[in-house]
Amino acid sequence: MIPTIEWRGKTVRMIDQRKLPGKIEWYTCKGYKDVIKAIEKMVIRGAPAIGVAAGMGLALGALSIRVRSYEKFKDRFEEMAGRMVKARPTAVNLRWAVERMSLLVDAMAGKDVEETQRALKKESETILAEDIDINRKIGKNGQRLIPKKATILTHCNAGSLATGGYGTALGVVRAAHEAGKKGEVIADETRPWFQGLRLTAFELMEDGIPVTVITDNAAGSLMYQNKIDLVITGADRIAANGDVANKIGTYQVAVLAKENKIPFYVAAPLSTIDMGIKSGDMIPVEERQPKEISHFRNYEIGPSGVKILNPAFDITPNKYVTAIITEKGIAKSPYKAAIKRLFKK
Amino acid sequence: MIPTIEWRGKTVRMIDQRKLPGKIEWYTCKGYKDVIKAIEKMVIRGAPAIGVAAGMGLALGALSIRVRSYEKFKDRFEEMAGRMVKARPTAVNLRWAVERMSLLVDAMAGKDVEETQRALKKESETILAEDIDINRKIGKNGQRLIPKKATILTHCNAGSLATGGYGTALGVVRAAHEAGKKGEVIADETRPWFQGLRLTAFELMEDGIPVTVITDNAAGSLMYQNKIDLVITGADRIAANGDVANKIGTYQVAVLAKENKIPFYVAAPLSTIDMGIKSGDMIPVEERQPKEISHFRNYEIGPSGVKILNPAFDITPNKYVTAIITEKGIAKSPYKAAIKRLFKK
Repeated sequence: MIPTIEWRGKTVRMIDQRKLPGKIEWYTCKGYKDVIKAIEKMVIRGAPAIGVAAGMGLALGALSIRVRSYEKFKDRFEEMAGRMVKARPTAVNLRWAVERMSLLVDAMAGKDVEETQRALKKESETILAEDIDINRKIGKNGQRLIPKKATILTHCNAGSLATGGYGTALGVVRAAHEAGKKGEVIADETRPWFQGLRLTAFELMEDGIPVTVITDNAAGSLMYQNKIDLVITGADRIAANGDVANKIGTYQVAVLAKENKIPFYVAAPLSTIDMGIKSGDMIPVEERQPKEISHFRNYEIGPSGVKILNPAFDITPNKYVTAIITEKGIAKSPYKAAIKRLFKK
Repeated sequence: MIPTIEWRGKTVRMIDQRKLPGKIEWYTCKGYKDVIKAIEKMVIRGAPAIGVAAGMGLALGALSIRVRSYEKFKDRFEEMAGRMVKARPTAVNLRWAVERMSLLVDAMAGKDVEETQRALKKESETILAEDIDINRKIGKNGQRLIPKKATILTHCNAGSLATGGYGTALGVVRAAHEAGKKGEVIADETRPWFQGLRLTAFELMEDGIPVTVITDNAAGSLMYQNKIDLVITGADRIAANGDVANKIGTYQVAVLAKENKIPFYVAAPLSTIDMGIKSGDMIPVEERQPKEISHFRNYEIGPSGVKILNPAFDITPNKYVTAIITEKGIAKSPYKAAIKRLFKK
């Protein structure tokens, strides 16, 4: 599997996910502004991957600060952090990573600037390594919920490409396969970006895990025909009460799963849980450009000037969520207490 | 509004709906096989429009039969009818129109071949005119269900282009507008063919009715946010118990409407109701080419060789349907009795 993102000398490079799977192309970031742009433009996407990118981006930015005093360094760093955190609003992992990097700068108070810079670069590498490790733990915890033979529906891409590696939802699928279970995946194509068709199918085919792509419209019908055994998705932000913000369309899949008595699981690291947000309706939902829907590449699909509404995420109330799978264990309803317990582990 | 389909001298021509709205191009059929191809390839689509096309296609075929005896004519005609009826399996209007044309041939027993040919051409024109008239009646009946100010979600295109003209679901929207109601439409883009983005938005913009396009993934979220007042779709076949076969994704919209306590209406002519089919699970659902999903025009979106499942329709059980709006009135649950009553009117 190609790495999602990595240090390459004094630059950070990432696979340009807008071009997958047709082209495997590196997008090289020389400064933190390149990373912000990459996040905004969805060169890299997926909540955990955005977190890793933000960490690396700030380390990259820190390396470019040419001052001698810690105070001046900290000022400049905080300015960069303030910009980085605004790159995309919904995935909380971005803010989480920025705060983690800022805390490290605080902890280095009085230290040499170069030492701080080195520490920040190292921290960004740690975030990446930890993310992969966390995903493997999520996989291990989650695969216990997967029957020996199951058809698993997933929405969007919560795989290796959405994370430092291995994946959250697809991490559970991978762990089930590693445990010898015969899982097969149905991937929603996931409009408007086609992450299911372009990324999830690509990843799973590379790994030799059977995958079939459907339009987002067909998921419910397959559930109604008893052709789906369980649903598993990632998350962009989870509120303290277990409400889940995730790729637009997730709410629908969850409602349809409940209506058809199919378990709906969410796999995500604790860094996706925002304890400062009581419920899903307080999570900011990003609205993106109409062109993502009205055009395919540069071809205009619909009538010129058509009005488009393009929310990138939706909120799934906790009552539709069968369980949230994290690296620290599995939370079930009542979520508020269950999530609190995970953080104490 | 451009006509969906019309006679043009000795040919039948239709707007090539695959190319809308970018190109307004006529597709001219010189023989019945051209019409079959046009239906198969979705040059023309929408259950009532397919019915009209089948009628015109058979009239076109009949005109090409060069025999003197009625018996020989009938044999040749029945062969054509047998081919026509197989063009697409789900929309029952196709079979309905073929049977209507065949019955006319039966009724002309012993008559002159030329007279029969003329009668068939005239019958195909009658089917078209009746369809427009029926849609206006559906509109009139249905608009009573529309509040003075409403945001109406629709899926696929059940408009002028899906019928002889005016439309079924969009006929209701048009009638509401003509009655001075301030309706605004949210159109699902409707993958994989984008009928919502390409056709519904195009039609409504031409008519000056406000329309906003969303991905199919966003419909549920808007309902959850109380941004949709009612849903209205067309149908490709309705079983005697009120189960509805319609464009893939309709089932999902109906379940989500019910979950969010929003009325879900189906607008269709009686010719869409198949009294020979007891329930939805007996309706044949067409599966179409993977390329409709894996490619956009000739551009391959996903990984080469990816497995795709492409059902073109789904079944919505009657329990999710608030009412079925027809030219003879409105049917509500219990549907079996209500539908029977409509046929007796």
